[in-house]
Amino acid sequence: MSVLEMSHRGKDFMGIAEKAESDLRQLVGIPDNYKVLFVQGGASTMFASNCYNLAGASDSADFVVTGAWSSKAQKEGEKLLAKANIIASSKEQSFTTIPDVNEWKFTEGSKFVHICSNETIGGVEFKEVPNVGDRVLVADMSSNYLSKPIDVEKYGIIYGGVQKNIGPAGMGICIVREDLIGNARPGTPSMLDYKIHADNDSMYNTPPCFTWYVSGLVFAKLLKDGGLAAVEQRNIEKANVLYGAIDGSSGYYNSPVDKKYRSMMNVPFTLAGGEELEKKFLAEAKAEGFEALKGHRSVGGARASIYNAMPKEGVEALAAFMKDFQARNA
Amino acid sequence: MSVLEMSHRGKDFMGIAEKAESDLRQLVGIPDNYKVLFVQGGASTMFASNCYNLAGASDSADFVVTGAWSSKAQKEGEKLLAKANIIASSKEQSFTTIPDVNEWKFTEGSKFVHICSNETIGGVEFKEVPNVGDRVLVADMSSNYLSKPIDVEKYGIIYGGVQKNIGPAGMGICIVREDLIGNARPGTPSMLDYKIHADNDSMYNTPPCFTWYVSGLVFAKLLKDGGLAAVEQRNIEKANVLYGAIDGSSGYYNSPVDKKYRSMMNVPFTLAGGEELEKKFLAEAKAEGFEALKGHRSVGGARASIYNAMPKEGVEALAAFMKDFQARNA
Repeated sequence: MSVLEMSHRGKDFMGIAEKAESDLRQLVGIPDNYKVLFVQGGASTMFASNCYNLAGASDSADFVVTGAWSSKAQKEGEKLLAKANIIASSKEQSFTTIPDVNEWKFTEGSKFVHICSNETIGGVEFKEVPNVGDRVLVADMSSNYLSKPIDVEKYGIIYGGVQKNIGPAGMGICIVREDLIGNARPGTPSMLDYKIHADNDSMYNTPPCFTWYVSGLVFAKLLKDGGLAAVEQRNIEKANVLYGAIDGSSGYYNSPVDKKYRSMMNVPFTLAGGEELEKKFLAEAKAEGFEALKGHRSVGGARASIYNAMPKEGVEALAAFMKDFQARNA
Repeated sequence: MSVLEMSHRGKDFMGIAEKAESDLRQLVGIPDNYKVLFVQGGASTMFASNCYNLAGASDSADFVVTGAWSSKAQKEGEKLLAKANIIASSKEQSFTTIPDVNEWKFTEGSKFVHICSNETIGGVEFKEVPNVGDRVLVADMSSNYLSKPIDVEKYGIIYGGVQKNIGPAGMGICIVREDLIGNARPGTPSMLDYKIHADNDSMYNTPPCFTWYVSGLVFAKLLKDGGLAAVEQRNIEKANVLYGAIDGSSGYYNSPVDKKYRSMMNVPFTLAGGEELEKKFLAEAKAEGFEALKGHRSVGGARASIYNAMPKEGVEALAAFMKDFQARNA
């Protein structure tokens, strides 16, 4: 019987599920007073769950808006909270930077502070955990989960979909400090109530077993390969190759992103030669086997997503192609 | 690039997704005025979604309770509706039958009538679509989806998880009449709002691509194998073999379920010899390779789940084992 067929309540799958959690706990160093929840619906569902679990309908929360995803989280907050305060935003900078934490205007009495630790479209990434004092920091880590060590204790909730660095799309992982569980407002849908998932070991209903299984294989592999410090080292090297190619091109390629906050996962860049040349670049790159390099329509240009699974060789090959393209077209 | 890696917004996966929907539409005969939504969170999430989309916070809905799943749906209704009326129940019969539709006490002004078309634990199944007049009938078909033809037009919403008959756990399919979309109450979480899924072709966020892909393969196979009428014919034959073995055992094996409503998917049975003999039966069956035959703890005994993917040979082997066990232990 394959993992695609077995009952999630059977001994075999329970063993798979438990090992996945214990490996993840070891990999990240998750303290005992944090629960790990394997949930469905992706970060978009957890945008809502966070509001239901941390705030009443007449409460507010604070949002730092640094791109498309943190903006979506804030908009969901507008639906479900009395107020979803934007306490800092880089919208005026076209989401190419992250507002300095010293300038965030926290709201008295708001129930949590929400950030997105990496924005896939703009390509900006928090480099340090922002100091929010004794406020509850909630972070959407969908797109840089397990790309580097995580200082769990600085967060109330860490959450995200698995589909970038961890496993096949269809599962989210939520790491929640225990004291934040059990306070969901009345009328919270059961599947959005973290206490229900915690009390049922993430099996209140049938979980996405295959995704859970593959995620477990990834946790085990990352442990074997040296843990998150080693993952970070590889990601730094990969990012350096690519940003080096951009910065070393004498302005032929350009990164629009504030150097302090350049993402290790998503590297958007433009060609000074303009849109027509960008089209040519993307077409030739595709012909050479570089898939999915087109930038998001809202930003244009190119974007290389170099998640954990992308080997350094892939990034080096792209850098070499960029150099060659420049030589032929400059 | 495998389907586990490709972008859900890329041409390749879009083609997979579209073909899956069009094959499902052909397989079931889904009228044009029904949307097909591929969603996350399973039926347990849709218990809530149905309330949000069909009823306001001060509205009520009617629930027919015939077992564990319809009971869960009703309890979710209690959280999210002004009233979740139990208009008929077989609880006093230990969920071994289905209350006659002529005795259902519909509530004036309630927004929908909810049934579960097959209960996995009790093993009861609706044999006809209940006539609820011009009320909106909502059916959880998780455990008998695609096991027989579906008369879609008699329903407002058909929904269910895919994990029994369709594909790997982690996706739900919701077939919704168009006029029921777009009326979600204020404060509906985005991921529970059917209009958001409909407007985004079920890609408001990253969908469970692999499950969607495998489900598509199953739709194509069922079409090739003669459609749902042929599926039903095979399921009738399978169920007849097993119920025949029970009924032909001179009372050695017993089905607790009202013959009119015996499920074609889940066949619970007990041994007149009592619990100790049942334990022996289950142990020997497991040793012979019959997995997952233990009845649910709330019912006891044995239960054979013979979903679409179980071949007739499997059921025949079980019937032969039952006969042999009886001969050796009677």
